[in-house]
Parts: sequence; C-alpha cells; structure tokens
Amino acid sequence: MQNSPIGLMDSGVGGLTVLKEVQRLLPTEKTVFLGDQARLPYGPRDAAEVTTFTRQIAGFLQRQANIKMLIIACNTATAAALATMQQELTIPVVGVIAPGSRSAVQTTRNHRIGVIATTGTIKSDQYRQNILAKDPNNQVFSLACQDFVELVEANDLDSEHARSVVKAGLTPLLDRNIDTLVMGCTHFPLLRPLIQEVMGPDVTLVDPGTATADMATSLLDYWNLANPSGVRHPQGDYYTTGDVDRFNKLADNWLEETPVRAHHLPVADLIQTTEVE
Amino acid sequence: MQNSPIGLMDSGVGGLTVLKEVQRLLPTEKTVFLGDQARLPYGPRDAAEVTTFTRQIAGFLQRQANIKMLIIACNTATAAALATMQQELTIPVVGVIAPGSRSAVQTTRNHRIGVIATTGTIKSDQYRQNILAKDPNNQVFSLACQDFVELVEANDLDSEHARSVVKAGLTPLLDRNIDTLVMGCTHFPLLRPLIQEVMGPDVTLVDPGTATADMATSLLDYWNLANPSGVRHPQGDYYTTGDVDRFNKLADNWLEETPVRAHHLPVADLIQTTEVE
Repeated sequence: MQNSPIGLMDSGVGGLTVLKEVQRLLPTEKTVFLGDQARLPYGPRDAAEVTTFTRQIAGFLQRQANIKMLIIACNTATAAALATMQQELTIPVVGVIAPGSRSAVQTTRNHRIGVIATTGTIKSDQYRQNILAKDPNNQVFSLACQDFVELVEANDLDSEHARSVVKAGLTPLLDRNIDTLVMGCTHFPLLRPLIQEVMGPDVTLVDPGTATADMATSLLDYWNLANPSGVRHPQGDYYTTGDVDRFNKLADNWLEETPVRAHHLPVADLIQTTEVE
Repeated sequence: MQNSPIGLMDSGVGGLTVLKEVQRLLPTEKTVFLGDQARLPYGPRDAAEVTTFTRQIAGFLQRQANIKMLIIACNTATAAALATMQQELTIPVVGVIAPGSRSAVQTTRNHRIGVIATTGTIKSDQYRQNILAKDPNNQVFSLACQDFVELVEANDLDSEHARSVVKAGLTPLLDRNIDTLVMGCTHFPLLRPLIQEVMGPDVTLVDPGTATADMATSLLDYWNLANPSGVRHPQGDYYTTGDVDRFNKLADNWLEETPVRAHHLPVADLIQTTEVE
C-alpha cells in the first residue's frame, strides 16, 4: 500500500492547486488526479448528487489505481461528501475545509475573516462553523462567487473580463474590514493575483490546499503509509471526464512538471464502474 | 472528548519545547505535561525500560486528565515505545521522530543531514531509517550528545561551560558539510543559540517539535477532536516526578505564559497507579 498513489478529485481543474502542494511537499508520492469536468460545476448541485459523484470517483480511483488515500480537492464535494466517504472507505479521506479553516484562524489578527466559495459550499455553512468552533471570537463573512469557477475552467485568468468579474464578485466584502480571505474553492487560487489586487495588500489570502497537503503528509506519516522508495514521482496520472486538450493546457500552465497528458474518461464508464461492483 | 486535554510526556523539561509549539498552534487546547525528572535521563536506558516508563505515564495521564491524545515529546521514548503505545492505547499517539525526519528531508538542499540525539535514540537508528525512507539520496550523520541533556536540566544554557560542552560534542560533525541538523532530543532546542553558534550560520537547525505540533493539529482535525469551546487555554497543567522548583524555573524561562506551578508526583504513585488497574 505504501507504493500506491494518493488520489485527488475535483469537479474540474481547481483541484490541481491542491495537487501542486501535494507534489511539492511529497515529491516521492505517486499521484492520480481526476477532474470531473463533464459534470462541472458541482457548486449549484444538491449535496446528495455531489455525494453520488464523489462516491463514483472514489470507486474508480480505488479500482483503477488502488489509491492509499483520497484527497477531496474540492470544497463543494468536501462539504457534501467528506463525512460519508470517511465512513464508507477504508482508506484515509482528507477534505479541504478543516485545514483551510485552521489556516484562516491561525492567520487572522483582527478576527474578521472572509470566505469566498461556490454556492454549495457557502450554503453548507461549514467554513463558518469550522472557523467559529476553533475560535468563536472570529467574525466570518461568507460570499458565494460561483462565476469565478467558469473563468478558471475557461483558462481566463487575467483578461479585462476576468478582472471585472472578480471585482464585481468581491465588492460586498470590500467594506468588511477583513484581514484574511479564505479561497474556499480550489479553483480560486488560480485567480490569486486578481483577487489580491481587488482585496488590496492588507488582506492575506488563505489557500486551503497548502494546509490540506500538510494534513495529508501528517496522516501518511502517522499510519506509516508514506512511500519508502525514495524515487521522485513529479509527474502524476491524470483523468478528465471532459475535454483532454483543455485540461492539459491548463494543467501545463499551472503545474511545474509538464507536459501533462491526461486520459479521457467517459462519465458513462465512471457510473458503470461503480454500478458493476 | 473534544474538551479533554492533550497529554505530553518527556523524561524531563525537554518536552516543553514541543509543548510550546502545541500551545502556539493550538491555543484553545488544554494541555497536561508530565516530566519524569526523577528517572532522567532516559537516553542510556534500554528500550524495554523506557517503554515501561512511557506506559506508566500514559496510564497516569489518561486516569488523571482523560487525555484525548498523547504526544511522546521525547525522542528516546518515541524510538522505544511509540509503536507499542499506538497498539495499546485507543487514543491517537504522536511521536517526534517521523515529523522531525520529514522536516529534515524538506529542509536539506545538499542532502547531507546531521542528527544529534541521546544515546538511546541514536542506537535505535530510527532517524536515519526514517530520513532514508523518505529520500534515499540523503546521507545521514548521526551523533550521540547525551551530555547536552544534563546542561538543559541544570538550566545551564549559556555559560562558558555549556559552550565548551556543546562545542566538544558537535566537533565530529563540523567537517561533514551538512546543511541541516536535526535536534533529535527535545532538550536540545533550549541550547539552540549555542548549537547554531558552533555549527555556523549555513546549517539550518530542525526542531522536530514544530512538525510534531503540526501533526497533532492535523490529527485533531481529522478525527474531529479539536476543542470547539474557543476558550484560550494558554496555561497547561504540569507534573514532575522531580524537583518542582527547578521545573517551574526552567518552564518559566522557556514558556511564554507564566508562572508555571507544577505538581509534584512521586514515582511510586506513577508505578502504583498503573499497577492498580
């Protein structure tokens, strides 16, 4: 099992921001990533449906790659499905919300924290609950920015259009005097420069991917699951249910070790694979 | 269980360096610390005896404080007893060697890593094995510095005598061209300024306590064991089997929140408590 890969899943390419941190902290671990772009976005879907999708993907990654750990590199799927997946799977399952909340609590000085995320994540209220559980002195300002996801999936990261969408989206947070902003959707770190520009230099942006990779590292060590081969595996395996060329292009821009050559996985196979069992 | 304290144990005051990191990262967690100074040093004892001591202390902390997690804040006891304690206890048990090894591997650039520790830890060879498992390209230079422990326990951290002991102890490492030195005994970070002075500014000192506190944080989040009260508990509970005044003085120097008022715990009670069960 130590030689098995770590599986990561997302509704699309956003999870690559978490993958990048995992590859940085754990260069000797194999990784396998699945972006469910054909069914993107997850944000507006209800929790039961997102849980079904997550279960299908987890099943595929276990059968295809015998993953030793699953990282739900998607805030919407974490909010909807983490607890269920932790119950159903025998491997460790890591989500992004608890680590992201921890980072935010450790970052803020004035105890005013913004959270931007998809509609589904904001609706779940889990960031606010997690942050207040760790320190009720905080005030949390939550804001759904669903349309940021489309910008990222379209690889539109720095156009004038992107700038205006980001600016309009963040406006409700500008007068809240927050000093910390959680990028509570794994797509959003790809828009970091624009988000920072709009929020100004006094707001620290928290990328939950960093703390999530950190948690994965701790759990591998705790269960003695780290790969002892010592061979670097900078290049992971990639699957997308969507368009391969678009996936590869975005992954190549974002990840350091390239080129990425994703496999196409039809959604029908994903569903069938799970039902066959 | 979420409101229960985290237990930390050491042969003496060295574990306070880990406690300090835990209190920094997890200010809302209650802590209870036991320093077994009456039976110090652990370093020269055999593994079976150290395991017995660790079991006695774990039993005391569970009965006295219903701890929700045990951090073995002692490298010697981690090397001797971590695996056994993880099997015997139903709460998470965290040691310092795996996190410390991870830190070292992530720190080194030239893949030449020094490890200084007690005789027992060096003899266990666990740092070398852990570091090589994570990356076999590393070379590990291990060195027992047992007499550093006495300096710290005597609160002799910056005298000329301390300087000469540290210098003599580290001399075998000076021509090894290491760029990273693991302080593989929790007492040693109290000697950090002297160790840094002797090793020179190009050697990065790794304190496993930082990564251990990080692992504890991840595990609390993973099992949903973090204290949700949000109340700060900067001041822990302290027990020593040794001299209370000496313990308090050293703890007051090292920890930020003071004064520390340790309870004295006779070794006889520690043994009896365990045997009574």
